[in-house]
Amino acid sequence: MSLEVKPAGRTILASTIARPYIEEVKQGLEQLNFKPKLVGLLGNDDPAAQSYANWTRKTCEDLGFNYELVRVDKEDLEGAILKANKDDDVNGMMVYFPVFGNNQDQYLQQLISTEKDVEGLNMMYYQNLYHNVRFLDPPHNEQKCILPCTPLALVKILEYLGVYNRLLHYGNKLYGKKILIVNRSEIVGRPLAALLANDGATVFSVDINNIQEFTRGDDLLERRHKVKTLGPSVTVEQLISSCDVIITGVPSDSYKFPVQYISNGTVVINFSTNKNFNDDVKQKAGLYVPSIGKVTIAMLLRNLLRLIKNKQYRLLREKDEEKIQ
Amino acid sequence: MSLEVKPAGRTILASTIARPYIEEVKQGLEQLNFKPKLVGLLGNDDPAAQSYANWTRKTCEDLGFNYELVRVDKEDLEGAILKANKDDDVNGMMVYFPVFGNNQDQYLQQLISTEKDVEGLNMMYYQNLYHNVRFLDPPHNEQKCILPCTPLALVKILEYLGVYNRLLHYGNKLYGKKILIVNRSEIVGRPLAALLANDGATVFSVDINNIQEFTRGDDLLERRHKVKTLGPSVTVEQLISSCDVIITGVPSDSYKFPVQYISNGTVVINFSTNKNFNDDVKQKAGLYVPSIGKVTIAMLLRNLLRLIKNKQYRLLREKDEEKIQ
Repeated sequence: MSLEVKPAGRTILASTIARPYIEEVKQGLEQLNFKPKLVGLLGNDDPAAQSYANWTRKTCEDLGFNYELVRVDKEDLEGAILKANKDDDVNGMMVYFPVFGNNQDQYLQQLISTEKDVEGLNMMYYQNLYHNVRFLDPPHNEQKCILPCTPLALVKILEYLGVYNRLLHYGNKLYGKKILIVNRSEIVGRPLAALLANDGATVFSVDINNIQEFTRGDDLLERRHKVKTLGPSVTVEQLISSCDVIITGVPSDSYKFPVQYISNGTVVINFSTNKNFNDDVKQKAGLYVPSIGKVTIAMLLRNLLRLIKNKQYRLLREKDEEKIQ
Repeated sequence: MSLEVKPAGRTILASTIARPYIEEVKQGLEQLNFKPKLVGLLGNDDPAAQSYANWTRKTCEDLGFNYELVRVDKEDLEGAILKANKDDDVNGMMVYFPVFGNNQDQYLQQLISTEKDVEGLNMMYYQNLYHNVRFLDPPHNEQKCILPCTPLALVKILEYLGVYNRLLHYGNKLYGKKILIVNRSEIVGRPLAALLANDGATVFSVDINNIQEFTRGDDLLERRHKVKTLGPSVTVEQLISSCDVIITGVPSDSYKFPVQYISNGTVVINFSTNKNFNDDVKQKAGLYVPSIGKVTIAMLLRNLLRLIKNKQYRLLREKDEEKIQ
């Protein structure tokens, strides 16, 4: 007889969480009278990028999207982006980074037109996220801002797991929740901390240098999160046990989260492609999500449909204005 | 212009939470070919008891139950209970306590047949609750145990508020939750602490003498809660800020819970008919339920239908056994 103790918590797979969003994407697609086209631009030899591209193609084709992979020399990437920006047949595009591995990558990223930026990586989208701006076209408020795929996927995962409380008001559904995020990248960790703080959580954002606390204050008068760097007297180990949720994204095989400090019943999510937790986390976590890729890709396609809708609204408004003139 | 800060949390009324249960009771009633009868036995002059009786009558009659209030001299109460026990037309009964205000009340309470005990106050029901026994008739498991109305109402409220996590397994949906209960009565506080611990919570049960911790341990091997009395070094004030949920039932107008220690976003429930919280609790609580009476009465009528169903199963089994003999 095995003496192994059955975990009290559960492991929840990304495929389960992605399912309703995949359904939503399918239904959105049915309402279109054309087949949207997503272009992936590959300017590196990274096998991880190649495998992400293959996987994106498979998901796109399974669901009924057109996916075109364009391989280019990295010196030709700029031209390829500008060409896709102008091509009316291209509804969305993404570049597989890193390419140059330095700030030139940021330059290329920002070249992608906001109208085709399925990943939501344009600085304008990030700025709106940080300031809790939800629409592109006030006062009409028809065209919704695109949110970066991975932070958005994590929000949807927290909703599914019941961390967002459906009874609390919109924009405040994380009130009272303490969330630790180990990652403060500009792409995921920092915008995620801001999103969750804007929804009412207290977020402890950890990187190699320090711990920052993101909050929105005690009341609803502030529309924007506040950031405070905590002094060296506060350690991650102290914070871990008091947190309701722990989210990690450390891109290293050697990093392992110190599971021994986690309180029983904590929600644990790893968005790194590396395994940031050993399996003993299952003896502690209430709900454990070991990877999130399938939710992220559902958000990518959801963003693609949103870009198409935004374009439709934009064209309608332009027609209206022509009539008035 | 008012400078008053709008609370981040919400007040949730018992009537809102009771609604689906009232619907369930209505549908259960429609499936019966008779009008169930509830008898209330009033042996005191307490205006609170009279008003509870009036309110029970109103709810019963609105929904289509028969309600009969029997007023008796307290010396005749024992006879009235025994008579109602034997009366086939009576489906459920409740006595408005206190009557004698001493242990004689417990004697009278236990006289009510388990088959008619709508409030679930019989020791057999409590014993099953403490030991996490859900059925009266193993191995058939057709007849469900009756749960005491008020603890049951509080469980249903915690479900509605999203404190129970629907993704966790049955019997473990409170895993990781810390709950403070100020009340350790035999009727509500102690059985409630056991119920919540049996569902995976860590419960701090507070009365005038000490603080007890109810848990079920870290794993699922134990079916029953454990109780540990905490030493004087642990104070309620220390515990309050770490709790996800605070539930009070202090039957006194002068008692007020020390709101200043509550963390923002905590779930707060008062089941006392007195106001255990000043209104400033709304500036702290995530979800605040100021009273629970309407949910309790829905549970009372739900129990009445369950008693009727249990009787139907019992009669069917008796017939089956007659056939075999």
